[in-house]
Amino acid sequence: MPKSRIEAFSDGVLAIIITIMVLELKVPHGEDLSALAPLLPVFFSYVLSFIYIGIYWNNHHHLMHAVKRVTGGVLWANLHLLFWLSLLPFVTGWMGENHFAQLPTALYGFVLLMAAIAYWILVVTIINEEGADSLLAKAIGKDLKGKLSPIAYATAIGLSFVNHWFAAAIYILVALVWLVPDRRIEKVLTSKD
Amino acid sequence: MPKSRIEAFSDGVLAIIITIMVLELKVPHGEDLSALAPLLPVFFSYVLSFIYIGIYWNNHHHLMHAVKRVTGGVLWANLHLLFWLSLLPFVTGWMGENHFAQLPTALYGFVLLMAAIAYWILVVTIINEEGADSLLAKAIGKDLKGKLSPIAYATAIGLSFVNHWFAAAIYILVALVWLVPDRRIEKVLTSKD
Amino acid sequence: MPKSRIEAFSDGVLAIIITIMVLELKVPHGEDLSALAPLLPVFFSYVLSFIYIGIYWNNHHHLMHAVKRVTGGVLWANLHLLFWLSLLPFVTGWMGENHFAQLPTALYGFVLLMAAIAYWILVVTIINEEGADSLLAKAIGKDLKGKLSPIAYATAIGLSFVNHWFAAAIYILVALVWLVPDRRIEKVLTSKD
Amino acid sequence: MPKSRIEAFSDGVLAIIITIMVLELKVPHGEDLSALAPLLPVFFSYVLSFIYIGIYWNNHHHLMHAVKRVTGGVLWANLHLLFWLSLLPFVTGWMGENHFAQLPTALYGFVLLMAAIAYWILVVTIINEEGADSLLAKAIGKDLKGKLSPIAYATAIGLSFVNHWFAAAIYILVALVWLVPDRRIEKVLTSKD
Repeated sequence: MPKSRIEAFSDGVLAIIITIMVLELKVPHGEDLSALAPLLPVFFSYVLSFIYIGIYWNNHHHLMHAVKRVTGGVLWANLHLLFWLSLLPFVTGWMGENHFAQLPTALYGFVLLMAAIAYWILVVTIINEEGADSLLAKAIGKDLKGKLSPIAYATAIGLSFVNHWFAAAIYILVALVWLVPDRRIEKVLTSKD
Repeated sequence: MPKSRIEAFSDGVLAIIITIMVLELKVPHGEDLSALAPLLPVFFSYVLSFIYIGIYWNNHHHLMHAVKRVTGGVLWANLHLLFWLSLLPFVTGWMGENHFAQLPTALYGFVLLMAAIAYWILVVTIINEEGADSLLAKAIGKDLKGKLSPIAYATAIGLSFVNHWFAAAIYILVALVWLVPDRRIEKVLTSKD
Repeated sequence: MPKSRIEAFSDGVLAIIITIMVLELKVPHGEDLSALAPLLPVFFSYVLSFIYIGIYWNNHHHLMHAVKRVTGGVLWANLHLLFWLSLLPFVTGWMGENHFAQLPTALYGFVLLMAAIAYWILVVTIINEEGADSLLAKAIGKDLKGKLSPIAYATAIGLSFVNHWFAAAIYILVALVWLVPDRRIEKVLTSKD
Repeated sequence: MPKSRIEAFSDGVLAIIITIMVLELKVPHGEDLSALAPLLPVFFSYVLSFIYIGIYWNNHHHLMHAVKRVTGGVLWANLHLLFWLSLLPFVTGWMGENHFAQLPTALYGFVLLMAAIAYWILVVTIINEEGADSLLAKAIGKDLKGKLSPIAYATAIGLSFVNHWFAAAIYILVALVWLVPDRRIEKVLTSKD
């Protein structure tokens, strides 16, 4: 079974998610700076989520590159990941419109946490299919970033009820850490060529 | 005529359907739990429809894999299926916002029923093109799940006027039965390789 | 220059157009039949436009199949066609919500007319690139349907100011005529194989 | 690493951007010309942005054609370009609904400027990967249009506070200059075949 369709479908969903998020930036009625000002937090949360979807697309791109066989399990693990990412526009809009208030900021972290867990389930599902000594298994091996991110999100959820700016800071920090492209899989693949 | 474009177009439409459904989850104005609570039934109907679109994409993926020639008949049978699925965001939103009331729940079942019939027409159209002894014809042969689903939806439509929770329960049950990936086509294809 | 990207982009745009049209079917607030009734004309105009986009996708599919070289002229002629089709959701919503009133019905016909002209420009651009004795030139040769459709739309625009139901009837009639898949190109291509 | 997915994802995002812009053309409630008239500036700004996205898609198509290796740097430079283009529907709607008022017109130019800079960063990133004597480096060499566009946008931003119609005129002029397809890359590629 070819993997082109699972890539095309995932690309489609991620492209739509990244683009409909901008619809939360509602065109204001006034024509001056005071009309634009209330949109700033929505804009900022849009930038943050754009980067997160970009990171997921980037890593998904690398991950699928290592896949050889697409099974039913992989298809559903992939849909499960897309489900949590599809909720990102909603929590992005809610967090932005409420100026990073406690509950919206915590819920944003919850969706990030569930997406991170879904990504991890997808990786494990693929490794189970490909075998423990596959390229992917080796590449993921000491995946510090992947293991620390869920812990960071969980911490942020807790901290959002203490001071929600701590939570926002953690989301930005994790995004910055991931912006460094995931060269692990790339390295192992290249060394085998 | 290559089948890549019919797959790409279907992937695109399904990716958009699955993603715009989340737009019915309107960002609430408040920032606390009481603002989120009314969205719960909408969220639940979103999850249900997400799974249904996932099932259709999954089965469509398997079905197209067995297709060798794309004719005008197949193109239109496919568009007919996409038409009914494109109504899913509407009935999902209506059912969710009205807390699974009688008529919305019945209409949801009606769209599921028509989509199931459209899928069956697509399968028959493909088998007519490929021949009765094609791989697909053999794989579909004793398609119990495919034959029982429309009956289940029709029952649910009727029951929704007695107790609409019965109908909702049937929709969930059928989705769970289908979540088990359709290994019939996969099996026959593998045994031929 | 490969034609896969122009196909992928067109598929994407057409898939989005066909799907966002359903967003004009706004989820009503009531939960009974009286809430659904006002949506009937919107639903009917949605079905009509869905079929038209399906026809364009189908014919585009056949047309691109005959293309060998994608030049800048073909790219822009294609974008010009997509532009007019992208206005279909707007006029569909306007016509539906105003119960097929005069001006909306005339404007709907205008967009169909411009799309038909844009399709004709695309065909001519491709034939200019491929040469007058290309397969496409032969297949299009006596394209009666393609030549009569713009005349039908122009007539409908005029008639919509006399009786707008005449115009609606013409739109339905032309759609039905086109629903018969365009076997001309298919035939010539097959005869050459 | 294959470049098909970066093309597919970019096509998806650009297809969605070009199509959701039409959602700013809100279906009016009246059914006569007076209901349509206020939409004219929104329609005009839609046409302008449609052409700009078409130009970017066209040039992106040519640019990716020259790429041989997709690295993490190229992926992120591409996402950065898509980010600025994703803001075009917002500024298009804001400029159109406010009849090309000063600040909206200036912000429209700012997004165009940032997209032009992002495109330039993408070109430089690709040339760095491909080498200074690659086909692309030669083709871009004396890229007058690419160098003058950002200057034109910056001038337009300044002029929009003097007379916003000057700014609008510059946006239209630059679009017209770019409508002439970019034959530079095409030429060099063809001469090598």
